[in-house]
Amino acid sequence: MTAANRRSFVPDTNIERDQALCETLFASLRDATGDGIGITRESFGAGESLALDIAETAAREAGLETERDAGANLVVTLRGTDAELPYVACGSHLDSVPQGGNFDGGAGVIAGLAILAGLKRDNFIPRRTLKLFGLRGEESAWFGKAYMGSSALFGRLTPDDLASPHAISGRPLIDCMVDVGADIDRIARGEPLLDSKQIAAWVELHIEQGPVLVARDLPIGIVTGIRGNVRHRTVECVGEAGHSGAVPRWLRRDAVFAVAELITHLDRHWRTLLERGRDLVITSGVMGTDSTEHAIARIPGSVKFSFEARSQSQETLEAFYDLFMSECASIGDDRGVEFKLDRRLQSSPATMDPGWVERLRAAARELGLPDEPIPSGAGHDAAVFANIGIPSAMIFVRNENGSHNPFEAMKIDDFMKGVAVMRKVLMEATL
Amino acid sequence: MTAANRRSFVPDTNIERDQALCETLFASLRDATGDGIGITRESFGAGESLALDIAETAAREAGLETERDAGANLVVTLRGTDAELPYVACGSHLDSVPQGGNFDGGAGVIAGLAILAGLKRDNFIPRRTLKLFGLRGEESAWFGKAYMGSSALFGRLTPDDLASPHAISGRPLIDCMVDVGADIDRIARGEPLLDSKQIAAWVELHIEQGPVLVARDLPIGIVTGIRGNVRHRTVECVGEAGHSGAVPRWLRRDAVFAVAELITHLDRHWRTLLERGRDLVITSGVMGTDSTEHAIARIPGSVKFSFEARSQSQETLEAFYDLFMSECASIGDDRGVEFKLDRRLQSSPATMDPGWVERLRAAARELGLPDEPIPSGAGHDAAVFANIGIPSAMIFVRNENGSHNPFEAMKIDDFMKGVAVMRKVLMEATL
Repeated sequence: MTAANRRSFVPDTNIERDQALCETLFASLRDATGDGIGITRESFGAGESLALDIAETAAREAGLETERDAGANLVVTLRGTDAELPYVACGSHLDSVPQGGNFDGGAGVIAGLAILAGLKRDNFIPRRTLKLFGLRGEESAWFGKAYMGSSALFGRLTPDDLASPHAISGRPLIDCMVDVGADIDRIARGEPLLDSKQIAAWVELHIEQGPVLVARDLPIGIVTGIRGNVRHRTVECVGEAGHSGAVPRWLRRDAVFAVAELITHLDRHWRTLLERGRDLVITSGVMGTDSTEHAIARIPGSVKFSFEARSQSQETLEAFYDLFMSECASIGDDRGVEFKLDRRLQSSPATMDPGWVERLRAAARELGLPDEPIPSGAGHDAAVFANIGIPSAMIFVRNENGSHNPFEAMKIDDFMKGVAVMRKVLMEATL
Repeated sequence: MTAANRRSFVPDTNIERDQALCETLFASLRDATGDGIGITRESFGAGESLALDIAETAAREAGLETERDAGANLVVTLRGTDAELPYVACGSHLDSVPQGGNFDGGAGVIAGLAILAGLKRDNFIPRRTLKLFGLRGEESAWFGKAYMGSSALFGRLTPDDLASPHAISGRPLIDCMVDVGADIDRIARGEPLLDSKQIAAWVELHIEQGPVLVARDLPIGIVTGIRGNVRHRTVECVGEAGHSGAVPRWLRRDAVFAVAELITHLDRHWRTLLERGRDLVITSGVMGTDSTEHAIARIPGSVKFSFEARSQSQETLEAFYDLFMSECASIGDDRGVEFKLDRRLQSSPATMDPGWVERLRAAARELGLPDEPIPSGAGHDAAVFANIGIPSAMIFVRNENGSHNPFEAMKIDDFMKGVAVMRKVLMEATL
C-alpha cells in the first residue's frame, strides 16, 4: 500500500442515500427468505425467485429498465447513448446454500443496483450501456453443479447437468429451470443466450468467504483468480451389513471404517501437497450411513459422502484426483468394500483480467482505499465469464465468520467502500 | 465330538407336525411385520405387538394358558403338578432392528411354542411348571438401550433408561412402554416383576448372528458366554462450518476429518488389542453430517456418530473405553473440535451356567448332534437372566448372511435340531 492509499476514504456525495437503499434491500431479502436459522434461497426455487422480485421492484422504483432473460435471470439496464458498443455487465447471484447467509451473492446484486439507481438519480447517461445481472443457480448445494445460471447464459449446460437431481426432491434441474421460466429449449440445445462479444467486461462484488481480509484488517480486496474444483456429489462405499457383536474384525466389510481410512489418507496427501507449495483444499461436506437401516448394533454396509478438491491449479486438481482414485482402489481391496462414484463434476480455475484488476486497484488507491490483490478460494460466476473469454474482475468485501452459514457478518461501511470502487470503474468504463 | 454324537439324528415322532407349526408361525410373523425390504418389529411398538398377538393366538389354539405380564410380555404356561417348585423358563424376544430379519428373536419364541404345544398335544404333564416368554424390547436400535424388556422384569431399568428417546420419534421409552400396557409404576420404582428365586433356569434358542457355525459346518452350537458392551448412542463432534473453498487447512475445524481420524486411531488400537489376544469388536453403526445444513461446498461443522465396543471381558471394555476418551481429547485439541458424549450405556458380559451348558451338550450328543461350545458375540436376554443369578443357557442355530439385516437365512432343518435339543433338556428338567 502506498502513502496515497492511506488517505482517508472520501465518500461519494450520495453515499447516505445509496447506503439507505442498500440497507433496505438487505433487510427485505433477509425478511423474505429467512428460514428461522439462516436464509434459504433455493437455486431455481421459491426463495431465489423472491429475491429476484425484490431486486426488480427496487430497480423499477429507481426508474430503471428491467427484464427476465432467457435464463430467467433478472437483467437491469441503464441504456447508453451508443448502442453499438459492447456493454459492461455487473452483478452476482441471488441463490444461497440451505441455512446460508444473507450477503453471499446478494451483496453483488445490491451493489450493482445501488450504483445504477444512483447514476439514474443523478441523470448520468453513459455512452456504453451498463447492465446488472441478478443471476440464478450459482450454488452447488442444490444440484451438485455450481454456476448453473451463468453456464446456461453461454450454452454450457450439458444434458447430464440438466438431468442432475435436486438434493432433496430429486427433481431434475431441467424441470426446476422450466418452473422459473427459463427457455429450456435453447438451453438444452447448448445455445448461448448471450453474445459474449457484446459484453465488454464482467465486474462482480462479493463478500470474501474466507478469513483473509479479516485476518489482515482490510475492508476490501481485489481478486486475482478463482479456484477451480473437481467434485463427486455422491460417492458410495458399499461394504456388508452385519451384527455388530457377531462378526470378528477380519471378516468385516465395514463401510464407516473404510471411509474413515480414506479420509485420513486423503488428509495426509493434502498435507504433503501443501508442504510442496501447492494450492489445495479438500472437503467432504455431506457424509452419512443409510438412515433407513440405522442401528448402533449393525455394522454399516453403506456410507455415502461428497468429495470436493479445489485449487488454483488444474494440474494440482488432477494430481489429487489421481491420489483419490488410487486410495479408493487400494482401501477397497484391503477392506472388501467398493467405492461407487457418481459423475465427476468440475469447474476450471479462472484468472481475472490483468487490465481490469489494475483498474480496480487504481480506483481503490484513488479513493484512499487499500488495493490488496487476493486470490479467491471460493468459486464465483466470474469464473464462467472469464473462461468464456470476457475480461472479468472481482471486488471482495471483508466478512466475518466465513460463509455458507447463517453467521456471515459484513459491515455496511466495508460494503460501501467496495461499492465506491465498483462505481468508479463502471463509470470510467462507460464513458 | 465323540463317536456317539456322530450317530444320525433321530427325530421326535411329532417332528413333522412341530415343523409345520413352526413354518406357519415364521410365515405369519413375516407377513405381518414385513416392511417391503426386511421385517420391522419396533421395540414397544406396533410390529412387536403384532408378533406377540400371533404367538399368543397360536398358543391358545394349542390349548395353552396365556397372559401378558406386568412388563407387557407374552407368557405361555404349561402348568406342572408341583406348584411349589421353581419353574423353568424359556423364550426370546419378538422385536427386531429396522429392516431386520425374521429369525432374530422370533426363532426362540417359536421354538418354545412348538415344544409347549407338542407337550400339550401329547398330554405330557410336567412336575415343574414350564413357561415361555415372548419378550419385548431386546434390540438397542430403537432406544439405544438393549435388554429393556428383560431388564424391566428384574427392576433394572433406571430413570435415565426410561427417559431414553425413541431414535425416530424422540418419544421417551417410558411412554412407549405405557402404550403397550406395561405396569410403568412398578417398573419406574425398580420393582422386580418376577421373583428370580421362582425361576429354576432360563433356556434361550437363538440364531447365531455371526459366521462361526456356517464356517465350521455345524447346525447348532451350545453357548458358553455372552459379550458385554459399552456404548454411546450419539457422540457429536462439533467443529466450525465454513465455505469449503475459502478456508485454508490450518484454519479449519472440520468435523468429518476429525471423526475420520478418531475412527482410524480406534481401528489401530483395536488391531493392537486383538494381537494381544483380547476379545473385542468395535462399531460405529450410525454416522452422519447434519442433513439440515448439507452442502458439498460447506466445511461440516458437526458430525454425529454412535460408538460401541463389545467384549467378553469387562477389563478389555474399560481399557478400550479409556483409549476412546483419550483419543477424543487429543484429536479435539489438535483439530479445534469438541467431542460431546451422551450417556454411557453398558451391558455386562455374562457366563452361561456350566451345569446347563453340560446338560445341553449331553442332550445334543444323545440326539446324535454336534455339541460344540461357542461364545456369543452378540448380546441376548440370557445375559440379563444370567447376571441376575438365574442359571441360564443358550442354543445357537446356524444362520447365513449374519443378522440385523433382511438376508438372515436359517434352514428349518437346523432349527428343528435346536428345538429337539431344547425339548429334551426342558422335559428332563421338568420331570
